[in-house]
Amino acid sequence: MKAAVMRAGEILVDEVPEPEPGPGQVLVRTLACGICGSDLHALQHADEMMKVAEESGLPRTMELDRDVVMGHEFCAEILEFGPNTLQQLNVGDRVCSVPLVFHPGGMAPVGYSNDFPGGYGERMVLTEPLLQRVPDDLPSEAASLTEPMAVGIHAVAKGNLKKGEGGLVVGCGPVGLAVIAGLRLVGAEPIVATDFSARRRELALHMGAHAAVDPGEQTAMEAWRTQAGAKTPVVFECVGVPGMLDQLMREAAPQTRIVVAGVCMETDSIRPMIGINKELNLQFVLGYSPEEFSGALRSIAEGAIDVGPLITGRVPLSGVAGAFEDLGRPDAHAKILVEPGS
Amino acid sequence: MKAAVMRAGEILVDEVPEPEPGPGQVLVRTLACGICGSDLHALQHADEMMKVAEESGLPRTMELDRDVVMGHEFCAEILEFGPNTLQQLNVGDRVCSVPLVFHPGGMAPVGYSNDFPGGYGERMVLTEPLLQRVPDDLPSEAASLTEPMAVGIHAVAKGNLKKGEGGLVVGCGPVGLAVIAGLRLVGAEPIVATDFSARRRELALHMGAHAAVDPGEQTAMEAWRTQAGAKTPVVFECVGVPGMLDQLMREAAPQTRIVVAGVCMETDSIRPMIGINKELNLQFVLGYSPEEFSGALRSIAEGAIDVGPLITGRVPLSGVAGAFEDLGRPDAHAKILVEPGS
Repeated sequence: MKAAVMRAGEILVDEVPEPEPGPGQVLVRTLACGICGSDLHALQHADEMMKVAEESGLPRTMELDRDVVMGHEFCAEILEFGPNTLQQLNVGDRVCSVPLVFHPGGMAPVGYSNDFPGGYGERMVLTEPLLQRVPDDLPSEAASLTEPMAVGIHAVAKGNLKKGEGGLVVGCGPVGLAVIAGLRLVGAEPIVATDFSARRRELALHMGAHAAVDPGEQTAMEAWRTQAGAKTPVVFECVGVPGMLDQLMREAAPQTRIVVAGVCMETDSIRPMIGINKELNLQFVLGYSPEEFSGALRSIAEGAIDVGPLITGRVPLSGVAGAFEDLGRPDAHAKILVEPGS
Repeated sequence: MKAAVMRAGEILVDEVPEPEPGPGQVLVRTLACGICGSDLHALQHADEMMKVAEESGLPRTMELDRDVVMGHEFCAEILEFGPNTLQQLNVGDRVCSVPLVFHPGGMAPVGYSNDFPGGYGERMVLTEPLLQRVPDDLPSEAASLTEPMAVGIHAVAKGNLKKGEGGLVVGCGPVGLAVIAGLRLVGAEPIVATDFSARRRELALHMGAHAAVDPGEQTAMEAWRTQAGAKTPVVFECVGVPGMLDQLMREAAPQTRIVVAGVCMETDSIRPMIGINKELNLQFVLGYSPEEFSGALRSIAEGAIDVGPLITGRVPLSGVAGAFEDLGRPDAHAKILVEPGS
């Protein structure tokens, strides 16, 4: 099949082996697959990513001298059931899935594996019990945003907001925008967002922020205080560049909880004494539970989250490499979808 | 009066102005006052300490070109009541106190202030409503350990241990030993402690650790697993030197809560990606509540915490400078008490 392949630090379109569904697996056709910031990281820093994963006690999921077909934010159509499947869904049904595949050797992350191509390929193999049927009236494009929205819903859950608490969202890339959606779902008030990009600030308001501020004009905490006064926010770090943690720890009020959702690949410096002086709490977050994933799909289907405006571009496989470059310019894009069949 | 004064980065004995009790204040005679690691830090890095406090939004509490009489872990005897006092206690009663004094200009930390000398002086001024009477049969020496024990009790409370959870205490200086006492009070099991010093490991066992391990032989997490198997501990970082957080984040199991009680004055490096990969939680802690402070005194008085073996030295005012040097050698000491009247 055709796929946009990561090979030697570049993305190029090539033929790759046809995936074949094993026991409990299902072959699907990719309809739409979002490009995630982690994929951009992986293309540039895959070595470092694997090294840190290993140091974190996680298995090494890919060898970089072999091809990887990335893409883990997808909506797909069932083509064929493998052996030992229950087949409660039907060929032609559209599905989303937590991007994990179970196989006789264990478990692999779809899109970060040499053996299980992700949504930047025409077809994928998924695990039957993880499939979530997409309601008929929900466009595939919108359904493909289930995964990033689940990330935001999970980060908010980890923030453990109590009644009356609000959220300060620092950075309105796809993660920050998903966090805003998650905060809106739990009724957080106010929700204050900051981003240097005017377009992203607009999207933040669309996703439910009560205010979106340019950090060039007000620091995040100043922006919060303008909106919320003396109340202490739960802070969501959604930028992921070195220096952000130190800055937020310095600005935060005593007893602040900082949820670290921005993925900073590099080593970062903090001053523990500032954390101690203010008894700060740093909660690092990753991924989501299966319940949070299906909750995200339901919220999108029911219209509680409107993901439409987040989709700022669509490309065929031949456009993936260019889309990776475009996503480096935050003013131009939020989410670009890959449509391998187009 | 006589005091061991911090002046130009040194400790020397000199005459300082006699403290006089203002409204709501009480004049006391220092009976015993522990030397705290923070005082050692302050002597060497007071500049940096004040700078970080200011960056944390805390007021600057001392000018370093003026004398400071440190000492905030004390037991003292009431000598005289100032104006507007309730006098429910009596002259001659022994007391402990949260080391804060309220004055017409606001609030000052006893022992980190130019105007309110701490327990390295013969006499202090304290705030009447903060005084805790020391039971008659409790030696003053033991009572002076109320403050550091409150620090441990508070750190454990912030660790929020659920039934069946245990604690891994990294570093058995006075803070680590107090955390062990606090863990014992809440019934944590097991309690595993690590320290390079054989003497401190002995003290750890005395305070209630179920095992105390030399980190030169086993890493902290290896030591934990030997004792507790696959269960995840709440980790208490009680060392406070750069590199510890990164090491613990690397070793920790997924979902681990790390309570940061060790005071690291310097800038430190962490790898956020490791925190994210494992969804770690870092809870920085400082101080204690008034309830935790009085709870510590009660636990010591009732024998639930036996602080006796922690007292490894006693010095008069003329011995404070030397004691500061001695405390740099972890194998020789846990807590040295200053006895200004001796």
